[in-house]
Amino acid sequence: MRRLGLGVDLGGTNARAAVVDGGTGEIVAAHKEPLRDRTPEHVVAHVRHAVEEAAAAADCAVAECGRAGVGVAGQCLGSTGIVLNAPNLGWRDVPLGKMLEAALGLPVAVANDLSVAAWGEKKFGAARGIEDVVLVFVGSGVGSGLILGGRLHQGAQGVAGEFGHVKVRPTRPATAPRRCGCGEWGCLEAYTSGANVAARVREELAAGAQTILPELTGGDPARVNATVVDEAFARGDGYATELWGEVGELLGTQVANLVTVLNPARLILGGGVLLGCPNLAALTLRRFEEAVSRSALKGFSVERAWLGDDAGVVGAAVLE
Amino acid sequence: MRRLGLGVDLGGTNARAAVVDGGTGEIVAAHKEPLRDRTPEHVVAHVRHAVEEAAAAADCAVAECGRAGVGVAGQCLGSTGIVLNAPNLGWRDVPLGKMLEAALGLPVAVANDLSVAAWGEKKFGAARGIEDVVLVFVGSGVGSGLILGGRLHQGAQGVAGEFGHVKVRPTRPATAPRRCGCGEWGCLEAYTSGANVAARVREELAAGAQTILPELTGGDPARVNATVVDEAFARGDGYATELWGEVGELLGTQVANLVTVLNPARLILGGGVLLGCPNLAALTLRRFEEAVSRSALKGFSVERAWLGDDAGVVGAAVLE
Repeated sequence: MRRLGLGVDLGGTNARAAVVDGGTGEIVAAHKEPLRDRTPEHVVAHVRHAVEEAAAAADCAVAECGRAGVGVAGQCLGSTGIVLNAPNLGWRDVPLGKMLEAALGLPVAVANDLSVAAWGEKKFGAARGIEDVVLVFVGSGVGSGLILGGRLHQGAQGVAGEFGHVKVRPTRPATAPRRCGCGEWGCLEAYTSGANVAARVREELAAGAQTILPELTGGDPARVNATVVDEAFARGDGYATELWGEVGELLGTQVANLVTVLNPARLILGGGVLLGCPNLAALTLRRFEEAVSRSALKGFSVERAWLGDDAGVVGAAVLE
Repeated sequence: MRRLGLGVDLGGTNARAAVVDGGTGEIVAAHKEPLRDRTPEHVVAHVRHAVEEAAAAADCAVAECGRAGVGVAGQCLGSTGIVLNAPNLGWRDVPLGKMLEAALGLPVAVANDLSVAAWGEKKFGAARGIEDVVLVFVGSGVGSGLILGGRLHQGAQGVAGEFGHVKVRPTRPATAPRRCGCGEWGCLEAYTSGANVAARVREELAAGAQTILPELTGGDPARVNATVVDEAFARGDGYATELWGEVGELLGTQVANLVTVLNPARLILGGGVLLGCPNLAALTLRRFEEAVSRSALKGFSVERAWLGDDAGVVGAAVLE
């Protein structure tokens, strides 16, 4: 008999629910629901509806799944199900776990989306059979998920893996040009995430930066993103070369430091920026290889994430 | 009945062996043996002698202890007992575990000295009863020991915790002024350890640095060390103030990044430089507080190491 699990991927714009075969990681049925209202009560109603639709499509009752897991793009207190800070939802200190348990009538586990993705890769993807794995995502945000000793490491309060918020620049407001979405200054994410790179390029274009980017985007600032910068880099654009040099150096050094300290057997790279910008990925890996401690490279390998957009629901469905 | 364990602390100049009460962490008897010859065969003979003396003083047979643990100041492949790189001993790829098992007639576990110290603090010291703990030592070298989910995290190959070798400066030889003892460039240890700080100050004194340090050391470069720099700082010396500003910034930022990523409930600080230089410790903690992610500070505390020089033998005796 199939053992079914319920997984929910809660981002800033959609909630996606899936009924997942807990033995194979296969998605039996899924439903995506736009978040028309981001207040916690409305989001819970959206999630409930997505779950019910997914269960109906899978031809099973919600209760049959026994429990549900939710991955949230934000900082979560793993043990209590409280979402501490989810900038994309505008949430602070929301007791999401308890609210969803009441709405679904099931026990609900809540974790950061990248912890969930790492666990999905461990169970069914690029980390299968490996005990020590670091997953780094660079997309609209920057973060990591840590599998250490075969277990998901969430830390004392559940906020481990906040790799996007390691400090790489001065942190006093007066000395740091870019503020991070978390409210602090000097964070890696503020200098390397897709959203922050695009914002910076727009500012620098407005200030008169010399580059072919306006040509590549038809002069529309809204079309500036990391992929276009990667294309400008490929065409030898000086501005893009300098920017990618800085971003690749920051990402490569910080990933190297994570690997030096944790000694994983595998590094998994994912997220739209790293997977969608081959030139930035190459610069990042080159810098990584320069900066990582030699001793951490024995038996070490790098892989791309396997599960793609499904990592969230699949990992959430099998959270322990 | 007492459950006795054998612990060995293998540094660059001495091997210290102790018979330890595995229930209380109390040292029943210990013996320290200078390493007159650092070739692996001689070191094994020194360790064997130290173990035999400690056992005799504890009035027990070596075999009664059942097993032994060894903490080595170097990078170790935990699972195999191989010491990859121990600069103070001049060792590379030494199969210490197997050599000691043959010499002692007991199973022997080998681990990095700071992993061992962290485990000792977990069992009997400042980390008792805490599941997620980061221990950072700044002494003649810089390193860390990680207790994650209640277990000693040694990583895929046993070299986790190499915090002294995260990169904080450019790593290409042409661009980095200081080479680390590990052979690489740009490592935290190269800029912050006691040995490296002393070497740098001597170089800068020889190059004519203006400071009261010659006065405090009677003009003897051999007496330059971190403690004296801390004293010069306390007296308002400009050179010491600038140097401590840089070292405190580097240490505080990197410790903050470790805590941000791992979310421990406790940070334990130890080592001669951090414990012997109150001004540097204060600068480091001030920078740590600025740089650490707010979310990692819930339920978080900082403690000094409790076990001091005994952490090595005590932790080694109870390695699992």
